[in-house]
Amino acid sequence: MNVSHSATLAANEELQRRRGSGERVLNLAFGEAGLPVHPALRERLSEASGHNGYGPVAGIPALREAAAGYWERRGLSTDPELVVCGPGSKSLLYGLLLAIGGDVVLPKPSWVSYAAQAEMVRARPILLPAPPGEGGAPEPDRVAEAVLAARAQGRTVGSLLITLPDNPSGTLVRPGTVKRLVQVARELDLVIISDEIYRDLVHDNLAGYLSPADLAPERTVVTTGLSKNLALGGWRIGAARLPDRAHELRTKLLGVASEIWSCPATPVQEVAAYAFTEPPELRERVVESRRLHGTVARAVHARCIRAGAAVAPPQGGFYLYPDFGPLRARSDLRTNADLAAMLLEKHGVGVLPGHVFGDDPAAMRVRLATSLLYGETSERRLTALASSDPLSLPWISDALDHLTEALSDLVVPRPGGTRLRHHSLVSDVASG
Amino acid sequence: MNVSHSATLAANEELQRRRGSGERVLNLAFGEAGLPVHPALRERLSEASGHNGYGPVAGIPALREAAAGYWERRGLSTDPELVVCGPGSKSLLYGLLLAIGGDVVLPKPSWVSYAAQAEMVRARPILLPAPPGEGGAPEPDRVAEAVLAARAQGRTVGSLLITLPDNPSGTLVRPGTVKRLVQVARELDLVIISDEIYRDLVHDNLAGYLSPADLAPERTVVTTGLSKNLALGGWRIGAARLPDRAHELRTKLLGVASEIWSCPATPVQEVAAYAFTEPPELRERVVESRRLHGTVARAVHARCIRAGAAVAPPQGGFYLYPDFGPLRARSDLRTNADLAAMLLEKHGVGVLPGHVFGDDPAAMRVRLATSLLYGETSERRLTALASSDPLSLPWISDALDHLTEALSDLVVPRPGGTRLRHHSLVSDVASG
Repeated sequence: MNVSHSATLAANEELQRRRGSGERVLNLAFGEAGLPVHPALRERLSEASGHNGYGPVAGIPALREAAAGYWERRGLSTDPELVVCGPGSKSLLYGLLLAIGGDVVLPKPSWVSYAAQAEMVRARPILLPAPPGEGGAPEPDRVAEAVLAARAQGRTVGSLLITLPDNPSGTLVRPGTVKRLVQVARELDLVIISDEIYRDLVHDNLAGYLSPADLAPERTVVTTGLSKNLALGGWRIGAARLPDRAHELRTKLLGVASEIWSCPATPVQEVAAYAFTEPPELRERVVESRRLHGTVARAVHARCIRAGAAVAPPQGGFYLYPDFGPLRARSDLRTNADLAAMLLEKHGVGVLPGHVFGDDPAAMRVRLATSLLYGETSERRLTALASSDPLSLPWISDALDHLTEALSDLVVPRPGGTRLRHHSLVSDVASG
Repeated sequence: MNVSHSATLAANEELQRRRGSGERVLNLAFGEAGLPVHPALRERLSEASGHNGYGPVAGIPALREAAAGYWERRGLSTDPELVVCGPGSKSLLYGLLLAIGGDVVLPKPSWVSYAAQAEMVRARPILLPAPPGEGGAPEPDRVAEAVLAARAQGRTVGSLLITLPDNPSGTLVRPGTVKRLVQVARELDLVIISDEIYRDLVHDNLAGYLSPADLAPERTVVTTGLSKNLALGGWRIGAARLPDRAHELRTKLLGVASEIWSCPATPVQEVAAYAFTEPPELRERVVESRRLHGTVARAVHARCIRAGAAVAPPQGGFYLYPDFGPLRARSDLRTNADLAAMLLEKHGVGVLPGHVFGDDPAAMRVRLATSLLYGETSERRLTALASSDPLSLPWISDALDHLTEALSDLVVPRPGGTRLRHHSLVSDVASG
């Protein structure tokens, strides 16, 4: 269960060493939003610095009410009593797996922590590929098949987890797929866990967003947080909307929460109670962030396509999951770990290899996180955020050139000097 | 595993309801330090409000170095690389049980979360009473016996957990007992987990404090935090000093931490990096707090003794664990849960029944937390903290009278009107 941490750490340490010795590095390995704290949030934290009580395990009432309002504004009727907050949605996901029990169906690839958490609670993750061209949810027919097979072997399967939009692929599952998954979950009596931490960062067309909770609020848990939309990853605050009338699940989850983390940091809860009301100044910040994430992710996408990779266009968040297989990469690169190591060692470019997301080690896929391209300082990041043309900022344009240079090393020269370009179409990056 | 949370919640809700309807309540149920945040800590939190990165799982280097310094000043050579911080020492304890593996030996009674955590990681807690007159550590001979018996049955026993000073009894294990426990742990190859979160709140005679880490730094994990000494419970920050050269345990613990909580809230880490250096203004605050906790705990002790209970004199923290068995209580009270319910319902006094600490449900023992007697407002609490005679403050003196009144209801009137007083000697409150 330490793979992800170690892989991330190793990449981080190597990048820091290189940066320390004056080398040029490009950090595409970390899923941090890469933007400064909004001043209104800083002010609220200062104001809340006198709050030192433990408070309720589920979170202070003002926070739970604000989070309920957040979901209400997205068309989802929410009882504040069924909102549970934690120190990050990660901790809530762990608590949910423990409280729901049984094995969990996951998309393949999917965020590193799902499978690791499942193993920690002694559940078996059942990893299934997404429908062609999608990412973040397993193909519904295969879910039915796999769950029935597992149950026939005497296993208990309790839940199905999806990520909307997805990490690592940056894509959004189609409404039709969500509908089919809900139907399968109903037939098989599975709890659906919908990780919607990147929801506010869908680049366009928010109107088209369909959460399984919209269709099956009685069996869907939605998780979110402020780590991505407001770049508060280090503040550790997340929230879960439990299924309607799921008081038993709530009791179990609070039992877990009370024995592991007690409550999120109280001053942070006070800030979150304000943030989840979505005042105009924070809405504007989210809109700006979404625009910047989309612009830079699309620019990186274009570079990958130009280099000959197969990669789905980014729809949300700040990730891409290119497949360099079409290039047949280079003969010395046999696994995505080799590919990531080469990019790091030869080019100072940090990425995460696909195998940490549960993908086939031999598939030449890596995750690129594009959010640390906005600059090394708060000043540069704010400039990027405010810019109508962030790609023209010299530090961002340099970083993109650095990436292009590294990617060009993956292209196999052909006799006559033409490059392999036949795989530049969008392909099924998210399927296993 | 939800018992403790539910019991606490139930007491809290009933107390709040009563307070809401204007009734007089006395909250002796909660282990919160009951003091305001020191202004220097508030300032540091404001200054750190721009920090939003995730940072290292083990905590930022400045924090780990400061925590190492904290232990160095207590005579314990500490490598900052072997310090791991988390959102409260509770989360670290959970991570340690998971990382060490196997069953865990616990004192009986002991803090509610140890046994609950053990069950959550599917370990079996082995609860053993303390030596007569002590609390917070199991009797060493019985540890050897129980571990050998468990192993003979094929069970794995990985660790032994002690609390110095203890919650719930407020007492401190004698150095001789610590020595014998270390010897047993060496013979049986057990990791010792020493929960020292109340260490700075030993009322007197700090020089006499012996940690198992002083004797066996190669097999002892020490945990601490800022929840008790600096009343920052709601800020969620704890630290663990791993055994010398325990790099493998560190890797495992960081694997758990990275998959459950990522890191403590970054602004709080910045504050803790300052607090663990123990600047004069915070040292003074800890000295004042220790004095107040001791004064009030001793006053409550005297009231319990006067009422005829058997109870060890408090040595650290803000707890007492009186035994009302000598009074044979009242015939309608058959369990400590009955006793706690009667105190709550009839007198508005909230306490925790001994059974939540793993004690015998029929033993008439309850835990009294004395730290919420200092006042309802920050102003009153600061007044109490600064007072040379806090017991004379009207709100504290009223609270003590309220307690005396409730305790008097436990005394069985005898023919001739004399009270049962024959059990006013200190007794073995911490043994099972």
